[in-house]
Amino acid sequence: MKLIEGGVCAAKGFTAGGVRCGIRKNRTKKDLALIFSEAPASAAAVYTTNLVKGAPLTVTKKHLADGQARAVICNSGNANTCNANGIEIAEGMAKLAAEALDLRPEDVLVASTGVIGEPLSLTPIAEGMGALVKSLSPEGCPDAAEGIMTTDTVRKEIAVEFELGGRLCRLGGIAKGSGMIHPNMATMLVFLTSDAAISPSMLQKALSGDITRTFNMVSVDGDTSTNDMVVLLANGLAGNPEITEEGPDFTCFMQALNTVTVGLCRMIAGDGEGATKLLECRVHGAPGEQAARQVAKSVICSSLLKAAMFGADANWGRVLCAIGYSGAALDVNRIDVGFASKAGEIRVCKNGAGVPFSEEEAKKILSEREIDILVDLNQGDAAATAWGCDLTYDYVKINGDYRT
Amino acid sequence: MKLIEGGVCAAKGFTAGGVRCGIRKNRTKKDLALIFSEAPASAAAVYTTNLVKGAPLTVTKKHLADGQARAVICNSGNANTCNANGIEIAEGMAKLAAEALDLRPEDVLVASTGVIGEPLSLTPIAEGMGALVKSLSPEGCPDAAEGIMTTDTVRKEIAVEFELGGRLCRLGGIAKGSGMIHPNMATMLVFLTSDAAISPSMLQKALSGDITRTFNMVSVDGDTSTNDMVVLLANGLAGNPEITEEGPDFTCFMQALNTVTVGLCRMIAGDGEGATKLLECRVHGAPGEQAARQVAKSVICSSLLKAAMFGADANWGRVLCAIGYSGAALDVNRIDVGFASKAGEIRVCKNGAGVPFSEEEAKKILSEREIDILVDLNQGDAAATAWGCDLTYDYVKINGDYRT
Repeated sequence: MKLIEGGVCAAKGFTAGGVRCGIRKNRTKKDLALIFSEAPASAAAVYTTNLVKGAPLTVTKKHLADGQARAVICNSGNANTCNANGIEIAEGMAKLAAEALDLRPEDVLVASTGVIGEPLSLTPIAEGMGALVKSLSPEGCPDAAEGIMTTDTVRKEIAVEFELGGRLCRLGGIAKGSGMIHPNMATMLVFLTSDAAISPSMLQKALSGDITRTFNMVSVDGDTSTNDMVVLLANGLAGNPEITEEGPDFTCFMQALNTVTVGLCRMIAGDGEGATKLLECRVHGAPGEQAARQVAKSVICSSLLKAAMFGADANWGRVLCAIGYSGAALDVNRIDVGFASKAGEIRVCKNGAGVPFSEEEAKKILSEREIDILVDLNQGDAAATAWGCDLTYDYVKINGDYRT
Repeated sequence: MKLIEGGVCAAKGFTAGGVRCGIRKNRTKKDLALIFSEAPASAAAVYTTNLVKGAPLTVTKKHLADGQARAVICNSGNANTCNANGIEIAEGMAKLAAEALDLRPEDVLVASTGVIGEPLSLTPIAEGMGALVKSLSPEGCPDAAEGIMTTDTVRKEIAVEFELGGRLCRLGGIAKGSGMIHPNMATMLVFLTSDAAISPSMLQKALSGDITRTFNMVSVDGDTSTNDMVVLLANGLAGNPEITEEGPDFTCFMQALNTVTVGLCRMIAGDGEGATKLLECRVHGAPGEQAARQVAKSVICSSLLKAAMFGADANWGRVLCAIGYSGAALDVNRIDVGFASKAGEIRVCKNGAGVPFSEEEAKKILSEREIDILVDLNQGDAAATAWGCDLTYDYVKINGDYRT
């Protein structure tokens, strides 16, 4: 398996594009994105667990009932959520795209992200549709990635190449997500495409299995959004024997998927609102996978730890504290904690108690852009990883007056 | 019932004091506090639910096994947690205080708050004990309240007077807590005293019953501390017939307790680390009390909402979003949301969707120091209130380099 360029356009038969249609006021950024498969594609998705769900999710779920889709349309700047006419607008977006692409509306998936509770008008979308479809191109991934961004500061795209049944396949994706990011749901907007041949049910199985270890292990601020979803389309144009059951090919597909999703998780966490640092918490020695995940997520979600990481302060007591309230049943007197980065690695806690360490060395390690928080529970074989970011002045600034 | 002066010294027979013994480096603040009852007292306590527990909690639990206590000693600047010799030190503190006060060590309760994982030396405590005991006085509550503060910016004390069986009784308290404050535990250090006569088991019942509606409904940052406890002593010197079962007197005692604890909750939330605003989320119309509490806590814990309140931004979508991921089973299409303060009240969401409102008026309401977030779920009769604060630049600043 190797990393390649192209994002959602890396897989054969996929094009993408993005334009600025005017949903976002006072902005020069693109606010409308489109992804298109020239051939029918198996499709799978996972959605937020928030009871307050954006209207686009309801429409996408309906359109995915047959496990097939050809296109995804997504706007930024308005979540189309908590609006009386939300379903009508989301269906309208699908219909406009379907007409322009000569598809059935049911083959178009819809997503929105932005402010909640402000009515979304179809007018700018209708007016921008011509330019949007015209923008579709195999080189269009950066435009689509920009079109779905809100407070993101960088575009997030990645793709890999891998082999299935002797045929080269590709799987790539784009993501958006900077604030309102939290475990236990499909955490953000992620659109993935592949030219592998795989049945809709196995595609859904692959996606649902993957997110428990990837997007559900990312947290920026503990807020579970109303609109987030992960969509995966696979059009089979690579020509491999269709995957219809578990086996070596499915495992290989899962690995490709995991490489892409972990890459996007790291990009999302590292670009957390106001973040200056990517935090990766690696938990080992857990009595079970569930406990490992609880611990990793609890650490990555601690506001106190996040603020300490911003200040490059090796306050390991906050790691232990977060483990203690994670809900996992643990013997806290066996826990070791360390910090690592490309500047080195340091042990700060052994058997639940502090060990002497060089504050100077710790400061050096924690001043890097990517920090690993290493936890060995020493009470089993299970492991898990979670991704997050530091808590900074800018998070507060960005969210103190988001709407205006 | 009326509010009176005196805090923990308002009740007959209680004195308190505080000194600076030198645990906290480079500080002029007092770091050691003592509360003393001249008569034997029933005692009750609740503790953090964090698996990582400070050594003082273990010792206090042991000393409370007989439901009796005469004194509480508490230091700030060091949590005495995750230290190999923690129990020994906590027992040493009790022993030092017991010797100086001519009590059994088992009648002294111990608490600590501050940095985790740095060994606590008994030396400054032993050296300061003489002055500490000497500082005990009926006017000593402010000194004790200062002695337990960490990042708190104001002392927190309150007391009430009420009648039981024809006798005037008093109940008062002090609290400490600014960061690492979160529901689902005894959230902070709170010491309460009363001169009412009440059996140890009824005292524990009163305290355990009260905290689910009070301290467990306060959140500053979602971090559950390792050291927090609420202690309640009642020495019976008011001379009322001892409360030994439920009934009108117990109800009256509960009301007095609740008045004091709600007052302290509001002080703690309003003095949250970096906070500029006290937030009170009042939920009505819930299908059950548990659901009401889940919703109120979820709203008050949302980082996005807290940042929006800092910015006086009426972003009600974030209220609805937090309700949606609260875990309570609700019909989100029946929810009304409003904001209120002494500048007025405004409805911003009706039946789960936005309603037109004056941004100017909203800004005025949200610019006050105390904000009410009003949620009517319109699907039952249960209600709950939670207290929190806004998320500000200063929270990050305070916690970016707490240890040094």
